Amino acid sequence: MEATLLIGYLASICSVGSFVPQACKVVKTGDTSALSARMYVLTVTGFALWTVFGVLKGEWPIIIANAICFCLSAFILLRKLGGCERGNRRDDRKV
Amino acid sequence: MEATLLIGYLASICSVGSFVPQACKVVKTGDTSALSARMYVLTVTGFALWTVFGVLKGEWPIIIANAICFCLSAFILLRKLGGCERGNRRDDRKV
Repeated sequence: MEATLLIGYLASICSVGSFVPQACKVVKTGDTSALSARMYVLTVTGFALWTVFGVLKGEWPIIIANAICFCLSAFILLRKLGGCERGNRRDDRKV
Repeated sequence: MEATLLIGYLASICSVGSFVPQACKVVKTGDTSALSARMYVLTVTGFALWTVFGVLKGEWPIIIANAICFCLSAFILLRKLGGCERGNRRDDRKV
């Protein structure tokens, strides 16, 4: 396999996989106080757009990877905004 | 501009821009307790690999966008691991 392609695949795995431990931590601790709601609004919007981009390109790897990331980051955002977290002050949700 | 390309650009802006509010929140509050160190290890590794991918492809937009994300996410990771945060218990750093 070409080195550039291999690096691209490894980078994709890291980017997609990075949301798994954060989602697990939110489930485990219920604490989202230090997470930025604005970050996750942008992240979820970005993954939705990447998924649409994949659909328009007809590229299944782009669709699948970004759809998974969309679901994981949307879950984290909903937990952040949901008000069911422990230790979140009302002010924290705006930052 | 072609719709697919426009969506790709918008998606890039969201993905790159998403780390700015989280980095700002870390600076402002000093609180990284709810952030997953494992997430940021994968994120930083992913952006480093994407930057190398951009260098090998000779694509400046890929290099610049991912180098910025690498710096922002590395800053967040260093603050998470640095032990200078408020409210972080030793156990939290492992999750």
